[in-house]
Amino acid sequence: MTTRSDFDVSLKNLQQDLLRMGTLVEEQIEKGIEALSRQDAALADQVVANDDEIDRMQLEIEDRCMKLIAMQQPMAKDLRRISAAWRISIDLERMSDNIVDIAKSIRRLAQEPYFKPLIIFPKMAQICQRMVKDGLDAYVFEDQELAIRMSELDHQVDSLYKEVFQELLSIMIQDQQKITQSTHLLFVARYLERFGDHATNIAETVVYLVSGERKDLNE
Amino acid sequence: MTTRSDFDVSLKNLQQDLLRMGTLVEEQIEKGIEALSRQDAALADQVVANDDEIDRMQLEIEDRCMKLIAMQQPMAKDLRRISAAWRISIDLERMSDNIVDIAKSIRRLAQEPYFKPLIIFPKMAQICQRMVKDGLDAYVFEDQELAIRMSELDHQVDSLYKEVFQELLSIMIQDQQKITQSTHLLFVARYLERFGDHATNIAETVVYLVSGERKDLNE
Repeated sequence: MTTRSDFDVSLKNLQQDLLRMGTLVEEQIEKGIEALSRQDAALADQVVANDDEIDRMQLEIEDRCMKLIAMQQPMAKDLRRISAAWRISIDLERMSDNIVDIAKSIRRLAQEPYFKPLIIFPKMAQICQRMVKDGLDAYVFEDQELAIRMSELDHQVDSLYKEVFQELLSIMIQDQQKITQSTHLLFVARYLERFGDHATNIAETVVYLVSGERKDLNE
Repeated sequence: MTTRSDFDVSLKNLQQDLLRMGTLVEEQIEKGIEALSRQDAALADQVVANDDEIDRMQLEIEDRCMKLIAMQQPMAKDLRRISAAWRISIDLERMSDNIVDIAKSIRRLAQEPYFKPLIIFPKMAQICQRMVKDGLDAYVFEDQELAIRMSELDHQVDSLYKEVFQELLSIMIQDQQKITQSTHLLFVARYLERFGDHATNIAETVVYLVSGERKDLNE
C-alpha cells in the first residue's frame, strides 16, 4: 500500500533525475558550440558519445513514470506531474539529438577554416541554454509565467535563425567557393532553431501541468 | 473493478486510434509531396491545417494511455503495449511536423518554376510512407521481424538523401541563380530524411514491445 508521502518522494526523485538530464543537455549545447567555434573534431566526437548517456536517462525516466502511474494511480494534477516529466524527458532527448546533428556537421566542416567568425551561433546557443534552464525551473516550481516568458525567448532564436539564413544565402550567391561550408552552417542554424522549438514544447508541457489547458506556444 | 477483457477492449480501441492517426500521417506525406511536385501552395496550406487534427489525436492518445495505466495497472508486456502506443503517437506527430516543414518550404518555393523535375522526393516519400504502414502493422501484430525490415528501409532514404544533397550542392556551385531554390530543396530532403528516422524510432518501439530489449536501429 502506497501513501501520499511515498508518491511525493518518488516524484522528487523523478524531478531530480530530470534536472540531471537537463544539466547534461545544457552541457551538450555548450560543448557543441565550443566545438563548432574552435572546429574541434575531438570535442564534437565527445558530444556524440555523450548522447548515449542522455538516451539511457530518458528511457529510465520513461520507465519510472510508467511504473509510478501504474503503482500509485495518481489523478488530475499528480498524473500531469508525471506525464510532464515523461514529455520533458523526450524533448530533452531530442534536443541532445539536435546537438549531435551539429557535432556531425562539425566533422564535415573541420577540413577548411571558416571564412568568417561565427558570432551568431554562440548567441543562439546562449538563449537556448537559458530556455532549458528556465523550462526545468518552471517545471519544478510549477511556474506557468516563467514557462511562457521562456517560450517568448524562442522568437529571438527564430529571428537570429532568419538573419543567419539570409546572410549565408547572400554569401553563397556572392562566392561559390563558400557554398559547401555555408550549406553546412545553414543546417547548424536550423538545428539550433529546432532546439528552441523543443524548449518551447517544454513550456507548453508546464502550462498544461499547471493549468490543465493545452496552449500552442510554438507560433 | 476492471477485468482482462476490459483491458483488451481498451487496448483495441487505442490501437484503432493509433492506426487512424497513422493513416492521416500517410495522407499528409502524400499530399505534401504532391503539393511539392505541383508547386501547389493551396494544397500545402491544407497540409499545414491538417496538422492540428494530428496534434489533437496525439494528445488524446496520450491521455488515454495514462488513464489506462492508472486504472488498469498493466504489467510487463501489457504495460509495454500502452507505452508503445504513446511513443508511436509522439513519433507520428513529429512526422506530421516534418511534412508541415516541407509544406512551409513549398510556399517559399512556389514563386519560381523548378529548374529540373523533382524525381527523387517522391521516391523518398514512397519509402517513408511504406515505413509508416509497416511500422503500424508491426505494432498491431507485434511482429518484430517486420519492424526490423522496416527500419532497414531507412538506409534507402538515407542514401537518396545523400544523393540529392550532393546533386543540389553541385547545382549551386555551377549556377548561382539556382542557389535559393536549391537551399530550400536541401531542407525538404532533410525533412524527409528525418521522417525516416522517426519511422525507425517506431521500429525500435516495436522491438522493445515484443522483446523487452532496447535496440538502436537508428545507425
